[in-house]
Amino acid sequence: MHVEFLGTGAGLPSKNRNVTSIMLHLEQKRNALWMFDCGEATQHQILHTSIKPRKIEKIFITHLHGDHIFGLPGLLSSRSFQGGVEPVTIYGPPGIKAYLETSLTLSRTKLSYPIKIVELSEGVIFEDQQFIISAQKLQHGIECFGFLIEEKDSPGPLLVNKLKEIGIEPGPIYQEFKVNETVDLPNGHTVKSKDYIGVPKPGKRIAVIGDTRAHQAIIPFVQGVDLLIHEATFAADQEKLAHEYYHSTTSQAAAIAREANVKQLILTHISSRFQNEDIELLKKESQQLFHNTTIAYDFYTATID
Amino acid sequence: MHVEFLGTGAGLPSKNRNVTSIMLHLEQKRNALWMFDCGEATQHQILHTSIKPRKIEKIFITHLHGDHIFGLPGLLSSRSFQGGVEPVTIYGPPGIKAYLETSLTLSRTKLSYPIKIVELSEGVIFEDQQFIISAQKLQHGIECFGFLIEEKDSPGPLLVNKLKEIGIEPGPIYQEFKVNETVDLPNGHTVKSKDYIGVPKPGKRIAVIGDTRAHQAIIPFVQGVDLLIHEATFAADQEKLAHEYYHSTTSQAAAIAREANVKQLILTHISSRFQNEDIELLKKESQQLFHNTTIAYDFYTATID
Ligand SMILES: [Zn+2]
Ligand SMILES: [Zn+2]
Repeated sequence: MHVEFLGTGAGLPSKNRNVTSIMLHLEQKRNALWMFDCGEATQHQILHTSIKPRKIEKIFITHLHGDHIFGLPGLLSSRSFQGGVEPVTIYGPPGIKAYLETSLTLSRTKLSYPIKIVELSEGVIFEDQQFIISAQKLQHGIECFGFLIEEKDSPGPLLVNKLKEIGIEPGPIYQEFKVNETVDLPNGHTVKSKDYIGVPKPGKRIAVIGDTRAHQAIIPFVQGVDLLIHEATFAADQEKLAHEYYHSTTSQAAAIAREANVKQLILTHISSRFQNEDIELLKKESQQLFHNTTIAYDFYTATID
Repeated sequence: MHVEFLGTGAGLPSKNRNVTSIMLHLEQKRNALWMFDCGEATQHQILHTSIKPRKIEKIFITHLHGDHIFGLPGLLSSRSFQGGVEPVTIYGPPGIKAYLETSLTLSRTKLSYPIKIVELSEGVIFEDQQFIISAQKLQHGIECFGFLIEEKDSPGPLLVNKLKEIGIEPGPIYQEFKVNETVDLPNGHTVKSKDYIGVPKPGKRIAVIGDTRAHQAIIPFVQGVDLLIHEATFAADQEKLAHEYYHSTTSQAAAIAREANVKQLILTHISSRFQNEDIELLKKESQQLFHNTTIAYDFYTATID
């Protein structure tokens, strides 16, 4: 799977960075896309990608600031225009329902598909056979959430050579090893399935942290994730401003990545004050604390495999 | 003055045409900009122009369909970020107030300037010494308005040569001819000011017609305007579709321009179905009925002088 950054700016759009949106591509795993935040003109950004809006299955909204939600009514409306029929579930802080219902009702937008709106509280917000998703509150002045997307482990492969050693050739019986705890062999013996199944493949774990002050309480939440996406609205030397405006600096985000022992850190929500050379500086100052750091840019894509 | 088309598409954005917004530039006349409709990403379009959002004084919303309003909360918010302090007045159909208040309140958008929201009914909606603006209802399924912007006539110039003929040389007395009906001359005579003032310069008249079925009732409303901006979502041979979806065809718009004896017609709200060669066709079929027709495109600018 991979994540695609559709907007990596802070507060308001600039020519280089649109306001926030991130897409998690799960086409291979479940023929679906999961979106995180939907700033204004996210649907316009999508026009420059291969993304098919009808494949968007879930939309997670970290908080209700305009640069994270003002693209949502338009995106939902265009998905309908383009003939989307599959339902969409939208998770967001309390208020997201009133915002969407008012926008869609007053604009007389009739969607061609059902939407379900889930107003968030902390804890597990979704679980199925493949994934478990949790939400945790951040510190942003307004109610704001971070999301942890955990893919469940895949069962290990059948150890075909080991089965052949005891005389079991490929056939319908192999399926029994996958679904039953024990298997009765044709020779009358009974064996334990797990002795013939390899090590499970661990699921990937991704954390998408919304706007926030540097927040120690998320360290256990994001512990060891394969990818941590964190905001960095300010540079290392702007801690006071960051605190005042409920945002983080590059170094603060990197310190959390290090503390939580994550595998990879991507910083986003980058102010348009920072231009080319500044971006190199932002990168360096975060890499001093956590080496595997990238500063996202619009349409940047990272693979997690 | 001139109009700049920020978005000329219909329904949803495409790579070539954004959704609707039109800017009337009045910088020379009153150091102000007047906007008509504000589809999503209008503020993004503005980034590619010389427009200064803090100069936007009035915003006229024709109707509440998403492709005409979903850019409004973001535009107002960014105008604030950019330090706008002058008030903005927003005119729109009933519902515009609830839409804006819900969007701005839930997103905790605190504007740095006052806004005034005027929910429209037909008739004169604004008048000052320079302009008079009227609204008239259209036929679009949802309540939708057309706007007539009438610049008042400018007083004619003082006829200096004629004044010199009667021995009145330039001086403070010239001001009296501009403000008083009669002027007492130094020689004891009294003359009528109007005999020494040239023909008034007629003000320009512009009509911006929102989404609508071809609507005969607007003919008297737009009679003789210098510029008629009309939608043309459909081609000449799609009258049935146009009627069904409450839109107009090219020919229907051109027929109204001809009937109303306007000076210039610009068609906008062009479906993304129409590409380069089609646009030429749209233009030809409307020019058959009204020669001075242009099909707008994004960033197209027309001068009215
Ligand atoms: Zn925020
Ligand atoms: Zn409409």
